Amino acid sequence: MRIDIITVLPEILESPLNHSIVKRAREKGLAEIHVHSLRDFSSDKHRRVDDYSFSKGAGMVMAIQPIEKAIETLKKERDYDEIIFTTPDGKLFDQKEANTLSLKKNIIILCGHYKGVDQRVRDHFITKEISIGDYVLTGGELAAAVITDSVVRLLPGVLSDETSALTDSFQDYLLSPPVYTRPAEYKGMKVPEILLSGNDKLIDDWKHQQSIERTKKLRPDLYKKYSG
Amino acid sequence: MRIDIITVLPEILESPLNHSIVKRAREKGLAEIHVHSLRDFSSDKHRRVDDYSFSKGAGMVMAIQPIEKAIETLKKERDYDEIIFTTPDGKLFDQKEANTLSLKKNIIILCGHYKGVDQRVRDHFITKEISIGDYVLTGGELAAAVITDSVVRLLPGVLSDETSALTDSFQDYLLSPPVYTRPAEYKGMKVPEILLSGNDKLIDDWKHQQSIERTKKLRPDLYKKYSG
Repeated sequence: MRIDIITVLPEILESPLNHSIVKRAREKGLAEIHVHSLRDFSSDKHRRVDDYSFSKGAGMVMAIQPIEKAIETLKKERDYDEIIFTTPDGKLFDQKEANTLSLKKNIIILCGHYKGVDQRVRDHFITKEISIGDYVLTGGELAAAVITDSVVRLLPGVLSDETSALTDSFQDYLLSPPVYTRPAEYKGMKVPEILLSGNDKLIDDWKHQQSIERTKKLRPDLYKKYSG
Repeated sequence: MRIDIITVLPEILESPLNHSIVKRAREKGLAEIHVHSLRDFSSDKHRRVDDYSFSKGAGMVMAIQPIEKAIETLKKERDYDEIIFTTPDGKLFDQKEANTLSLKKNIIILCGHYKGVDQRVRDHFITKEISIGDYVLTGGELAAAVITDSVVRLLPGVLSDETSALTDSFQDYLLSPPVYTRPAEYKGMKVPEILLSGNDKLIDDWKHQQSIERTKKLRPDLYKKYSG
């Protein structure tokens, strides 16, 4: 899978894309990730990528020219399955969307910035608008990092234990059960007795029951999807 | 405001916390952000911070000892308003929570990792569990970066234009209106006529109407909160 990220601030993405699982996926050749500085595509002599909004007091807006050039340049080299724009008013990102994206071959992620992007970009070039949550970030770079991380870890061969991603929360609309590790008692705080029983069947039943109870209590909305 | 982040992978946070708005806030002395490597608090001679889960096949779990030590060490030096754990089964983070946190003085963010953290940590030390969205990430570092970014930009004096954060999406349950910048026509793609009219009142009305229509169409759930 190949991910091209277009951004005004490539430096923000440096450490998230070069450590841990994403780094491993890149080194193994399972994910190819390219970060492009939007300024490199500006036809302005000062390499500007933003300009004043047409309506006053609305702050700076990402201009159409550099974005159009960046996207067209990439599209000349290969076909893209999706051209994603990260924006707080996009469709809420979830695990299902991460699964879907992990099956794509080439995607572009355009990071939103300032007070937004010229609407013509969204109308003519973007195929999918994604929000990672109902909150405002300084830019779409962290959103791009989040999407990349959640998608790349699903690619076959990336996680060392193939079952790892399957037991994550959300894959079946249930939250994970509580987990415990040694020591069995720490400063008076004990792990549940059943985990020390050595009876795998009982422990599995207990875990499933705990998953259901936690989901009911913490995320009734998810529980409805599970039981429905 | 002071934010202490406890993590297994401090290096992931390096670039998000040292660029753009967060960097500016730190340089201005408006936000103090400290990243602590959990390994520094491990009593294990190999500085291990994880161990096998008590139930087999469940992967590695963050152990209680280093976390307890890290949190207690910090708490000895100052009072904390919240000790946050980032986890996919936490309460969904939103702009309201960002606003709330931006009024706090000292917070700790413990980044989840592996298959989770020993439940005793959550039961005894954590005051708030936050998820940035319904998807699974490799670790809580990106979640901590997202929370930090969204909170820090709300601190008075961080954004250059005081009104900037107020006109963001979500602050009043309405999505932002579409924005446009020069040129008025680019390769045949034109901006809406009204924006070229110079009539501020008409433009403001149009923007508000667009906000309402976009919210109704893209996020009926938000629109219900706005109109309700």
